[in-house]
Amino acid sequence: MNSLARVEVINTGTELLFGSVVNTHLSYLGQSLFPLGLRIQRQTTVPDGAVIRDAILEAAPRSEFILVTGGLGPTSDDITREIVAELTGRSLEYDETIFARIKERFARRGIRLTDRISRQAYVPQGASVMPNDFGTAPGLYVPAKEKVPHLLLFPGPPRELQPMLENYGIPLLRGLLEDSDLYARVFRTTGLGESMIEEIVGERLTSIPELEVGYCARLGEVDVRIIGSRDAVEAGETLVCTELAQYIVSADAKDIEQVILEKLKQKRATLAVAESCTGGLLADRITNVPGASAVFLEGSVVYSNEAKTRTLGVPTDLLSSFGAVSEEVAKAMAEGALNRSGASFALSTTGIAGPEGGTAEKPVGTVYLGLARTGGKTEAEKLYFPMDRRSFKSIASQYSLNMLRRGIDS
Amino acid sequence: MNSLARVEVINTGTELLFGSVVNTHLSYLGQSLFPLGLRIQRQTTVPDGAVIRDAILEAAPRSEFILVTGGLGPTSDDITREIVAELTGRSLEYDETIFARIKERFARRGIRLTDRISRQAYVPQGASVMPNDFGTAPGLYVPAKEKVPHLLLFPGPPRELQPMLENYGIPLLRGLLEDSDLYARVFRTTGLGESMIEEIVGERLTSIPELEVGYCARLGEVDVRIIGSRDAVEAGETLVCTELAQYIVSADAKDIEQVILEKLKQKRATLAVAESCTGGLLADRITNVPGASAVFLEGSVVYSNEAKTRTLGVPTDLLSSFGAVSEEVAKAMAEGALNRSGASFALSTTGIAGPEGGTAEKPVGTVYLGLARTGGKTEAEKLYFPMDRRSFKSIASQYSLNMLRRGIDS
Repeated sequence: MNSLARVEVINTGTELLFGSVVNTHLSYLGQSLFPLGLRIQRQTTVPDGAVIRDAILEAAPRSEFILVTGGLGPTSDDITREIVAELTGRSLEYDETIFARIKERFARRGIRLTDRISRQAYVPQGASVMPNDFGTAPGLYVPAKEKVPHLLLFPGPPRELQPMLENYGIPLLRGLLEDSDLYARVFRTTGLGESMIEEIVGERLTSIPELEVGYCARLGEVDVRIIGSRDAVEAGETLVCTELAQYIVSADAKDIEQVILEKLKQKRATLAVAESCTGGLLADRITNVPGASAVFLEGSVVYSNEAKTRTLGVPTDLLSSFGAVSEEVAKAMAEGALNRSGASFALSTTGIAGPEGGTAEKPVGTVYLGLARTGGKTEAEKLYFPMDRRSFKSIASQYSLNMLRRGIDS
Repeated sequence: MNSLARVEVINTGTELLFGSVVNTHLSYLGQSLFPLGLRIQRQTTVPDGAVIRDAILEAAPRSEFILVTGGLGPTSDDITREIVAELTGRSLEYDETIFARIKERFARRGIRLTDRISRQAYVPQGASVMPNDFGTAPGLYVPAKEKVPHLLLFPGPPRELQPMLENYGIPLLRGLLEDSDLYARVFRTTGLGESMIEEIVGERLTSIPELEVGYCARLGEVDVRIIGSRDAVEAGETLVCTELAQYIVSADAKDIEQVILEKLKQKRATLAVAESCTGGLLADRITNVPGASAVFLEGSVVYSNEAKTRTLGVPTDLLSSFGAVSEEVAKAMAEGALNRSGASFALSTTGIAGPEGGTAEKPVGTVYLGLARTGGKTEAEKLYFPMDRRSFKSIASQYSLNMLRRGIDS
């Protein structure tokens, strides 16, 4: 099996078509399969129930792998397991180990086991089980047979699917692609736009023989992906690391918040934040990382001027002479957070998220970011992100985290 | 054309399959079409380029409407327009008005017009144009012809598609469905699981003649959707409002954070929050609502015990006797936030988000929520959400907001 294997994704779920849930599976799978050299060629969403049969049969002749999400649960609509068994001519066998695991999980949560639940313990003969560490329905790998290609079946909830793919699905796929000699790297960058990055490294990257290059831009973040032979990837890596050094957040697709917490832990340093315009998002992102409590001491969301003075000691004359959205106040906020918490580093944000509150001098989208450190100089940076409120909060928090990332190293 | 018309959605875009962008189209379209009585029966994502032809041909016999997103731009990959003209046997005609509009747009932004751009001014003969108020490529409605059903073509960027659908697409669809006399309501609820809601109102709702019922569960939230004749929807509404009264957050799909801010504004009341385990998410959600600054005074993210004492005045002996995760500390945190900010209401959260930090007595997922109010009694609630860290934060913040929602009314 080579790395040009064709992959299709089938998502089952009436709730996806109904619009009540955004389908994040495709994006997650696309990103996770990339380092294996696998490309998703088509994705289909079908309702719960029997249509999954048509979807698999249509995808089969077009692909070497089909990844299915959803339809493994206990209700009568969840029939992916049965349909796959039927399509591949396999019988369903009861797996005592799975059932014991489910039973144990239910006992722990004090929930009564219903008859329906035991359906999840059936496995198509010859399939391998991918354990579900965050739910009841296990995932299944059903090897290619007759006209049906390799099938990987995952549960629908992202919090169950994502760790399952990472811990069991990816290693399994790597095994099936064993003769592959492809290497891949993903560089996560912050601070430059996609077009600027392409201008700096684009031409030289694409001129490396046997190297494939891709860029993925998100709000305040651009991934540079390279894939190819070992030599090609090494050449690409050298180029990217030299030319984009200060913008690289991670070379292993780690998020900036995780990178920061690891750096701070390593230095036995601590962190506090003082937020106005990001309104808690900065603290939220930091505390999304498991173990954040070892590093993160305190956050203050100081929306009103009174709160800025009361909690962070921002002098009222600073607020009146320069305004809340100013370099001076950003610095005073960061220093206030540092002083009250005793942290090694403190970040601050103050800006105009909109849609109201802009002026000619300080239009909606204006933001000042501050960074204070114990025994060091306080810095501030002025940026301008004229966009909707949520995007503004998101990109402002991203640049604030990036300011800290660079600050820890300097 | 009746309301049971079958709809398929085709999204074109290599970036969607690559995983660099989350596909939000399906969710947006699903929600927007619901009030028209239209259901999306299947959705497909294909790469840019010629595969769009196969996708349209496959969807055609299964549907009365096909909605296509993407592929209307100026680059050589953007060939939706040409393929649709070919499939429906229509010639492409140059539309002077469209070109003038594009030209004017470019002039305004000071960008030079390239030859490629003029491709966007071609329209399949007999199609109607949906103007693009936020970009260059107009949308197109191509009436059903031969074996191809009604086609609606939209540009790929959500900020162009969404206003176009709302302002031109929905009225156009309403016209095509003109004999429809359907009504719809969406009730957003928090505090009961989907199965519990179904148990309370499910049977009685489905027994109302000419009423269709749907449930959509998200983390800590369940939407109840009803659609049908005016009488049927009125009967359904009465039932839902009577039986689920205290759980209904909104009857117009408004989010709980927006509902709360409106209620507080109306009462000229203010809010402060004190977060431990939700780590800033509560403040972040509140400040996502435009105009939050009129109501929201201050948030404290007090991860460490020292911060709980220093900032909120939680007595150290309370922390040592009951532990940080306790009813007593939740109450003291809420009261501390109320006192320091002078707000009318204050929320608090303290719990064990995991994956570490759980004990036999207080396992990962345990959370205490507090609510204090000026001149009133402080309440606390113990809940248990054994799930991954982010889901835990999300559902804990949801229940905290719901505690406030009920508290404001009582």
